[in-house]
This record gives sequence, structure tokens and C-alpha cells, in this order.
Amino acid sequence: MDSDVRTVTGKVLALLGAFTPSCPELTLSELSRRAGLSLATTHRRVAELVAWGALERGEDGRYRVGLRLWEVASLAPRGLGLREAAMPFLEDLYEVTHENVQLAVREGFELVFVERISGRRAVPVWTRVGGRFALHATGVGLALLAHAPAEVQEEVLAAPLRAYTDKTVTSPARLREMLDAVRRNGYAVSDGQVTTDAVSVAAPVRTDGAVIAAVSLVVHADGAQPAALAPLVQAAARGIARACGSPSGARVFPRAPVVSAATDRSRR
Amino acid sequence: MDSDVRTVTGKVLALLGAFTPSCPELTLSELSRRAGLSLATTHRRVAELVAWGALERGEDGRYRVGLRLWEVASLAPRGLGLREAAMPFLEDLYEVTHENVQLAVREGFELVFVERISGRRAVPVWTRVGGRFALHATGVGLALLAHAPAEVQEEVLAAPLRAYTDKTVTSPARLREMLDAVRRNGYAVSDGQVTTDAVSVAAPVRTDGAVIAAVSLVVHADGAQPAALAPLVQAAARGIARACGSPSGARVFPRAPVVSAATDRSRR
Repeated sequence: MDSDVRTVTGKVLALLGAFTPSCPELTLSELSRRAGLSLATTHRRVAELVAWGALERGEDGRYRVGLRLWEVASLAPRGLGLREAAMPFLEDLYEVTHENVQLAVREGFELVFVERISGRRAVPVWTRVGGRFALHATGVGLALLAHAPAEVQEEVLAAPLRAYTDKTVTSPARLREMLDAVRRNGYAVSDGQVTTDAVSVAAPVRTDGAVIAAVSLVVHADGAQPAALAPLVQAAARGIARACGSPSGARVFPRAPVVSAATDRSRR
Repeated sequence: MDSDVRTVTGKVLALLGAFTPSCPELTLSELSRRAGLSLATTHRRVAELVAWGALERGEDGRYRVGLRLWEVASLAPRGLGLREAAMPFLEDLYEVTHENVQLAVREGFELVFVERISGRRAVPVWTRVGGRFALHATGVGLALLAHAPAEVQEEVLAAPLRAYTDKTVTSPARLREMLDAVRRNGYAVSDGQVTTDAVSVAAPVRTDGAVIAAVSLVVHADGAQPAALAPLVQAAARGIARACGSPSGARVFPRAPVVSAATDRSRR
């Protein structure tokens, strides 16, 4: 749910939500317009946010998200918490392949990339840590969608499905078969469905029966052997699940949230 | 400045600031107590924060920082923005050494770790991405402190300096000499000053004359050759500076904020 700007909490959240990957720096008047607040209100709230460190003001007068907000946000279990537990396994995957290694979680009807390691010679990918992507095209997306609640799958399949390339599967019936295959095989393959030159092989990270994340290798399409890469990705997924579910306090990963923005479709 | 809980913005920020590395999960009454708000106010504000995705509520009834706040915070230029530009150089450092690689920025009178890569066989370190640490003990801290404004250096040297080990330098006069040496040599060495078994070699990341971050290698004290590691770390620091200052839009790193929580001492 986007916040109700009639409440003050809503105003604060509207100001934070005004920053997006395409607009990470905003002037006061841009902030005012994007948050739907008067300039006077924006001015007052922004001053408080800057004083606390949630926003920072640059020499150019533009505002950016501040380091202190990032510090607080680093405590999100599904963000850096998961990432810390997963990192040794992602590094191992990277070291033996020198390809792109990605870690993502599902948030509502999309996925959010929590980590990415890319070699200099790896195939270029579009993803950004903290960025969102559709579930129906990428390897991690298919792995997450295959294990999402039935109502999430139905909503995603019922909505228009964007074709990123000629190979993107946009037929609900064909996608259903692919999701069946993901569940049967234990891994997902996205072959040229996001960019024509890349193949992604992804596996779900499963703790206590629930899929909390997905991990993938994205390699050059040329000569890629998904079936050969799958065990490597699946082994990493198991390692991450173990690290998340381990009894050592620091690394315990909580179950999926009961209440969150995850059932929210309005931001799509 | 800690927020003024008499304003609603202050109340929202107090609720977010209630989460700390040692208390990343809180019940409603813990949140109320830590934020200094009534239970009724806490209940109302938390419901709004959960609806937006800034907080998440687990099956155990405890609240955690939500993924959507992490998404917004991932836009902080001094957090993930810097980290994205630096990552290829940090990976290179890690691959050729398999030791701990760290990236930190100064925030007021402390440092914040923005990235860490640790090999399985690397010496254990205390740091956590998003975590804070004193400036006077670590390699990255000394590199940042040596290039901080004079008034920041004076305040740090005037305050009580914690001894983490027998080798931690807590004499202001001796620290002044060390900071001189950092500026002269172009790199900082912390030898057993945080944990007795580790040596850190750090270099400042300098763009347009300003030091925006520091990068370090932390290795086993046994047999460490700081002078031999220094060129490696310095080369990585130069690469990161180049990536941050490059004219390609996406990677431009802004100058240090003019207005931020950086001059705030109250949270120390």
C-alpha cells in the first residue's frame, strides 16, 4: 500500500518513497511534487529527515538517501541479514565459475535482488542490488514463482507478461509447464528470456519447507550447459539454507513475514 | 541529532532508530519503550510502517526492518552506490589474497563499514556491513581519521580512546604521529590494535582531493608484511576513486554531503 499522505507518517514515508533507482537525487521541489506534498510541508519534514541522517543534502542542493537510513535498513533480515549468511556460498560459486552470481527474494509479485557478484568477463546483466524485476523471466524469478503461494502465481500469470526478448515466455499455459518443471527438477532455467546472450540457472533456498530466496548463475548463452551448472547452484542454495537456519544466533533467518507489503499489488 | 519525538516525523524516526545491531527484532512494547512513545502511539505508527513495508511483523509477533526500507536505503550514494562502484576492485583484492577486504566511510566521529568480503580461511574480524566502529583503532579508521577535518581529529583525540587490545594506541600524542605517518606514506597500518591476531593495511579513496572512503586488507598478524601489501591496497583505492569519479552517469559519486548527521556527536 502506498502511504496515506494525510497522516504525518504517510508524509514521511511518501518522502522516502520518492527516491527511486531512476531518480536517486531530488531537489526540494521534485520531492514535493513526487510525494504529493506542499512545498512548506516538504521543507519542514525534509529538514527533520536531514537532521536525523535519513536524507543528505549535497553541495548541489539536491537531496539523497542518507547513510543513517542505510545503517538502519542494513538490519533488515531479508536484506543484508540474508546476504551475510549467503555470502560465503556466493563467493564460492563466483570463484569456481567467474560468472554472475545473484541472490533474490520475492516481494509481492516481483523479486528484489539482494546480492550480485559479477566478474569483469561475465556476461552483462541488468540487475542492481536493491532493484526489482519481474518474476516470469529471470532464473531466480522462475524459481521464486514456482514456490510462491498459488494466488501469487495466478495473479502473475493473469497479468500482462512483458517480453524482454523474442524468447521471453509470455504464454500463461507455457509458463505453467515451466513452473511445473522447476518444481520437478529442483532448478529453473531462463535461456535468453531477459537478454538474448545470457542463460540463468537458479535454485530455490528452502528452510523449514518455505522458499525464502533463490540463487542463480548467469552465464554466456554460447556453449552454456544448464544441466551441468544446476548441481553447483543447488548445492549453494542448500548451503545458504543451512546458514540461515543454523542454531547459531547471529545467522538465524526468520520465517517469512506474516504481515508485510508482500501482498500489496498497488506498487506494481 | 536524535529526533525530537514531539513531532510526528520525530516519532517515525525514533521507531526506525529503535532497531540496532544488538536488537534487530523488537516486540511492540520494546519498540514503545526504546522509542519513548506511548503504546497507543507506537501501535498506530507501527501499523502504518508495516503497511508501507518499512517494518515487517514475523510469526513470533516481533517486528523487524522491512525489505522496502532496505530497497529505498539501497539508493544511498554512500552505501550501496559506493559499494557498487568499488565491488570489482574489492573482488580483485580478495581473489589475489583470499584475506578480509573491507570498505568503510566516515560518519561523524565513527566509521561505517559499507562492504566486507571474507574468505573462509581469513582471520576472523568483528566487522559487520552497516556496522559502526571507532576511528582510532582499525586500518580504515586511521586512514579516514588522517584525512578528516582538523576539528574532527581534535575531538576524537580529546575523547577517551578505548583500548581493544594491549596494542591499541590510546595516547593522543602517539596517535598524532601515526596520523602524520598515514598522510606521509599514503596508507595506514593497524597491527594488533583491534584483535591481537590481525593486521590491517588501509588506503584512503580520494576524489577531487576529498577522501570519501577507505579500503583495507586484514590479514593474520603472523608473517604479515604491511609494506608489501600497501601497494595492492593503494592501487585498489585508486581504482575505486576512478570508478566513483568517472563521467559515466551511473557511477558518479557525489561529493561529501554539506548537511548531514556527520557533525552530530550525540549518538556517540
